[in-house]
Formats: sequence, C-alpha cells, structure tokens
Amino acid sequence: MTPAAAAPPARAYRRLGVEERRAQLLGAALTLFAHRAPDEVSLDEVATVAGVSRPLVYRYFPGGRQQLYEAALRSAAEQLILCFGEPPAGPPTERVTRVLDRYLAFVDEHDTGFSALLRGGSVVETSRTSAIVDEVRRAAAEQILLHLGSGEAAGPRLRMMVRTWIAAVEAASLIWLDEGKQPAAAELRDWLVDQLMVQLAATAATDRETASAMTALLAQETAGGPAGRLAQRLVPVLGEAAHLLAEDG
Amino acid sequence: MTPAAAAPPARAYRRLGVEERRAQLLGAALTLFAHRAPDEVSLDEVATVAGVSRPLVYRYFPGGRQQLYEAALRSAAEQLILCFGEPPAGPPTERVTRVLDRYLAFVDEHDTGFSALLRGGSVVETSRTSAIVDEVRRAAAEQILLHLGSGEAAGPRLRMMVRTWIAAVEAASLIWLDEGKQPAAAELRDWLVDQLMVQLAATAATDRETASAMTALLAQETAGGPAGRLAQRLVPVLGEAAHLLAEDG
Repeated sequence: MTPAAAAPPARAYRRLGVEERRAQLLGAALTLFAHRAPDEVSLDEVATVAGVSRPLVYRYFPGGRQQLYEAALRSAAEQLILCFGEPPAGPPTERVTRVLDRYLAFVDEHDTGFSALLRGGSVVETSRTSAIVDEVRRAAAEQILLHLGSGEAAGPRLRMMVRTWIAAVEAASLIWLDEGKQPAAAELRDWLVDQLMVQLAATAATDRETASAMTALLAQETAGGPAGRLAQRLVPVLGEAAHLLAEDG
Repeated sequence: MTPAAAAPPARAYRRLGVEERRAQLLGAALTLFAHRAPDEVSLDEVATVAGVSRPLVYRYFPGGRQQLYEAALRSAAEQLILCFGEPPAGPPTERVTRVLDRYLAFVDEHDTGFSALLRGGSVVETSRTSAIVDEVRRAAAEQILLHLGSGEAAGPRLRMMVRTWIAAVEAASLIWLDEGKQPAAAELRDWLVDQLMVQLAATAATDRETASAMTALLAQETAGGPAGRLAQRLVPVLGEAAHLLAEDG
C-alpha cells in the first residue's frame, strides 16, 4: 500500500515535475469526482485515468481518496469562485445573467459530484469539505452584493436576502440535475434572475437600505433587458392584486 | 460496554414499560441533540439526563450514539412535519404565516442541533440522516403546494419554485440562528411570506399554471392581510421601474 512496498509501475509514463504531476492527478480525480458519487471513486481508477501507478498516486496523496477528494474539491471551488467575477459595468441584471451562465455551465459539467456534495451524507464529507462549500457561498454573496452596489458594507437584511437567493440557486440547480437538466439552462437562468429582482423588491418594501440599492439598480436597467422583460410581464399579474390596494379592502 | 457486563444502575429508577422507556430515552437524547453539536453528545450524558444507567441506554439503542441520533432525528422530523399541517381555509398567506410561526418556534427550540444537521460535515451524518431531512422538505413542499391550490398535480415550474422557497427558508433560519436570532421571529416570518408571494408572482409571469394558481390565491387575499400589506408597500418600489415599461425604452 505504501509507495516503498509497491512494484515499479507496469506502464512507462512521461517524467513530470512535482507540480505538474500533482496537477495531472488532481485533474484525473476531478474528472472522476465530477461524474460519480465520491464513495464510488477508487484510487485505482484515478491511477488508471492519469495513466500512472497506484503507488504514485499515494506518494502525492498519502491520505488516499479522502485527501484527493478534498484537493479536487478545493480546485473545483477555486474554479467556481473565478466564475463569479464580472466587471461592474452595464445593467446589473445582465451581469448576474452572465455569472449564472457560467455557474450553470459548471453545474452541468460537474453534475454527479455537485449533487453528491450538496446533498450530503457521503463518507468523504467532513467539516473541511463543508468549510470549502461555505467559502464558495460567501464568495458568491460578496460578488452579488457588489453588483447590487453594496459589497462589504451591506446591511443585515440585504445580506440575508442575497444569501437566501444563493441557497435558492443551489436548490434549483439540484432540482435541475434531478430532472435531467430540464428546463433549458437559459430558461432556468432567466427565472433565477427574475427571482433575484423580485426578492430585492420585496425586501426593499420593508428595508430602507435595500430600497436605496433597488433605486440605484433600477436606474441602470433598460426596458429591453432582463429587468424590463420582467417588469412588463409582471403588469398583468399585479393587475389582479388591485383589490388589495383598495383603501376600504 | 454491553448490558450483560454492566453493573446494576447505581441509582434506583421507576420501572417503565419498553415503549415508555424508549420514549423517555429519546426525549433525553432530543433535548441534548437540540442544543449541542451531535459530535459533542455522549451516551453517558443521555443516561444522566434520563436518570438511567449507560448500559440501559445501550440495551435500547445497541448502535450507540449513531442509532440514538437517527432515532431522535426521526422523532424531531415527525414533530416538524406535524407543524406543517394547516386547515385549507382562509387567506393562503395567513395559513403560511401560521405554518412559519410553528416552524420558526421549532428552529428556535432545536437551534444548535438544527444548525449542525443542516450545515453538514458531522460524523453522525449519513445517507439515512440526509434521507430524513429530504423527507421533511418534501412534506413541507406538499403542504405549501396544497395551500397554493395545487398539491400533487402541481407542474414542474410551480414545484421548483416552492422547493427553492423552502431552501431559502432553511437558509434564512440558519442565518437567523447565526445572528443571535435577529431580527425578531415575527419579522423574519413576514419577510419569508413576502418572498413566497413575489416568487410566485415572478414565476406566474412566465408559467401559465403558476399564473392560474396566483389568480386563485389573490382572490382569497384581503387588503388587511399579508398579501395586502405587501402589495401596498410594493407600489412605490415598482413606481421606480416605470421607465422599464416604456415602449420605446
């Protein structure tokens, strides 16, 4: 089991530097963990996919599958956090649309691993893997808050709203995977942007800070963009609420 | 460690029937698991709280802490599912308000255990505990769909909307616990009802089935109830979106 006890690799492989080899093993692990439940991935398979011997995998990851899983998760988390970056220019709903496009592409690409990780109950899940997931959620919240014109200075209500929206995005992604990636990713993305807008509006109804953020955001939106499309579609729905505005209702 | 090897309990305790004793041990476990991280609860403590010997706890729960945790979780899940029941009469937002009151009281009462369970990464978390949590989520979704006039026949968009709202409620509850139970539970509850209404409205904007559910729901609401209060508060917020409705925008 230990590298010292192992036979030399049966198959010749190109000599790589330490960092290069580590990245290659991590890449193989990430591919396997993306499309299989973590409990179903074995070190032998990682070795096979990477085209190296099992002892070599252990030399780089002496903690075995658990260590490899955590390293692969960290690498995936870094990738995902990069997806959230978006220049702070143009209508905010269009920026969020682009961020969600990249996020859903990531979910699509790591489907089984994403599900297994977020559903919990796997043997490889530890307080360390939970901390990595939380770090991604925090990074997502900070980015969204930036596009809403707040960022680190955001107050508790706006912050709670953004964090609950992120939880809703995660839940919607899991349902989307369960339902064979239906509806189309673009439709799901538009719906999630709509949800963010109306959650912001409902929070603005009782929170002054969110109301200011909403005012600033609406001023940057256009009739042809996501916020305009939503506003136009909401008119008939809200028309049915007219009796709730009656003073003697 | 096994019942046979144990000394007789040092302290005399009232003789209880098997079911009664089991319920008593479960009650003690639930109390401990509610206010402590599961990894920090020991069988000795359960025995102490229940006023029995450790071997007696093992006689009822030979699987030790893991089995006791799962049994306590199942019992808490049944309690929580009962909270969701609400007669299908009166304005739906008022029904949801009452359901959320009971849910938030449950969260308040089981604070640490609730957090630990939903945050994941605990050693007692298994695919069985995840299945119990999912069962509670499914029961919550079915109840909310009933109040929205759908139920088992609900289509995929309305169903996804309700499930993402439930994820948002969970996330908001965890944030609420993290922030020392601020804001007041009633304020959080009203905000969550508002969120459900606007998510429904945004989904109704692009989904015919949800639009019908929304129409039926609004007809049952009053100007003085939660939907009326929200509608009145949304008027000024939506006024700022007027430029998005311009035909030449």
